[in-house]
Amino acid sequence: MVAPLQFWFEFASTYSHVAALRIEAVAGARDVPFEWKPFLLGPIFRRQGWSDSPFNLYPARGRYMWRDVERLCDTYGLPFRRPSVFPRDSLLAARVACTGEGQVWLPEFVRRVFRANFAEDRDISDAAVIGDILGSIGQEDGPLIALATAAGSKQRLRRETEAAWDLGIFGAPTCVVGRELFWGHDRIDEALDWFLTKGGGSCPNT
Amino acid sequence: MVAPLQFWFEFASTYSHVAALRIEAVAGARDVPFEWKPFLLGPIFRRQGWSDSPFNLYPARGRYMWRDVERLCDTYGLPFRRPSVFPRDSLLAARVACTGEGQVWLPEFVRRVFRANFAEDRDISDAAVIGDILGSIGQEDGPLIALATAAGSKQRLRRETEAAWDLGIFGAPTCVVGRELFWGHDRIDEALDWFLTKGGGSCPNT
Repeated sequence: MVAPLQFWFEFASTYSHVAALRIEAVAGARDVPFEWKPFLLGPIFRRQGWSDSPFNLYPARGRYMWRDVERLCDTYGLPFRRPSVFPRDSLLAARVACTGEGQVWLPEFVRRVFRANFAEDRDISDAAVIGDILGSIGQEDGPLIALATAAGSKQRLRRETEAAWDLGIFGAPTCVVGRELFWGHDRIDEALDWFLTKGGGSCPNT
Repeated sequence: MVAPLQFWFEFASTYSHVAALRIEAVAGARDVPFEWKPFLLGPIFRRQGWSDSPFNLYPARGRYMWRDVERLCDTYGLPFRRPSVFPRDSLLAARVACTGEGQVWLPEFVRRVFRANFAEDRDISDAAVIGDILGSIGQEDGPLIALATAAGSKQRLRRETEAAWDLGIFGAPTCVVGRELFWGHDRIDEALDWFLTKGGGSCPNT
């Protein structure tokens, strides 16, 4: 069985916002199956010696990114407002997304968290905000947040982040097809091309 | 008069190689005029606290880049062989390219320098190699190299690199249209779209 394309994303990442709001449509249009793979960039940045987002550490890079994301969202018709806090703590959202693997509510949860952070300037580290989002898609927030913050779920997100690093992932979003990485919202089409022409191959981390 | 699109590139940069070998065809296909803008990334990296290419400083990023560039060159049918030295000292090549502004030989010089570095593994810091390339396109290398290494030409490349930084450029290649930056070989099409739909505007650094 061909492994699906993996879409690795981080809720605090601006370019993940652009990609997460588009991937279902662009992959769907080409009939490419994909998996949502939430992970944390923080531990990966720290391994590279960064204590903050490189967009904050390197202001020229940051200035470009904010303009670029605004322009991209305008081009694609995606909602965007520069958040008052960047990067936001995405730990709780990522834990909830991890527990939602394979659930029908996951894609809409992911998109609503990105919208909350990058279009509505809401604090996605606040359990009340995550609870609101779960409620808005018809899920009971209490049990899901309890599950997401239990030891097993915490461990699971840590393992996923380790798996991302082991795959060679250093930024988000990253599409993975077999052993090939495609980093950046602007490389989704190439990842889809690769999937369709070279095949997904076996899933690299299972 | 509408200012042309500016194509800022660095001879030591792998993604500039990919872009430089393609831009004349892709811009030409859409009738977009562009200028070759050589500059040096070294001084811009040093301002950001880097003493080396970030591809060397951050190995995960570097591993991805080498695979990505190999894959891109394969896709586009461009020559590529990973050079034995990276990044190569591009000072002389950039000075020669600066003195060639508006000359008919410049585009082919640029492409041959990139090929020498990234397909033939030749040392482009060596005046004999640059001389060979000039000779291969029918130019007398002696006078051109003398001109390129005269004080005025050195100053000119410094000014261009300053202008790049003032525009907000932090990496290469970068296309500039009016005040808009498009960083990366993979954003040329968007720069062309911007040029054609929003217009080039006045040249930002004149």
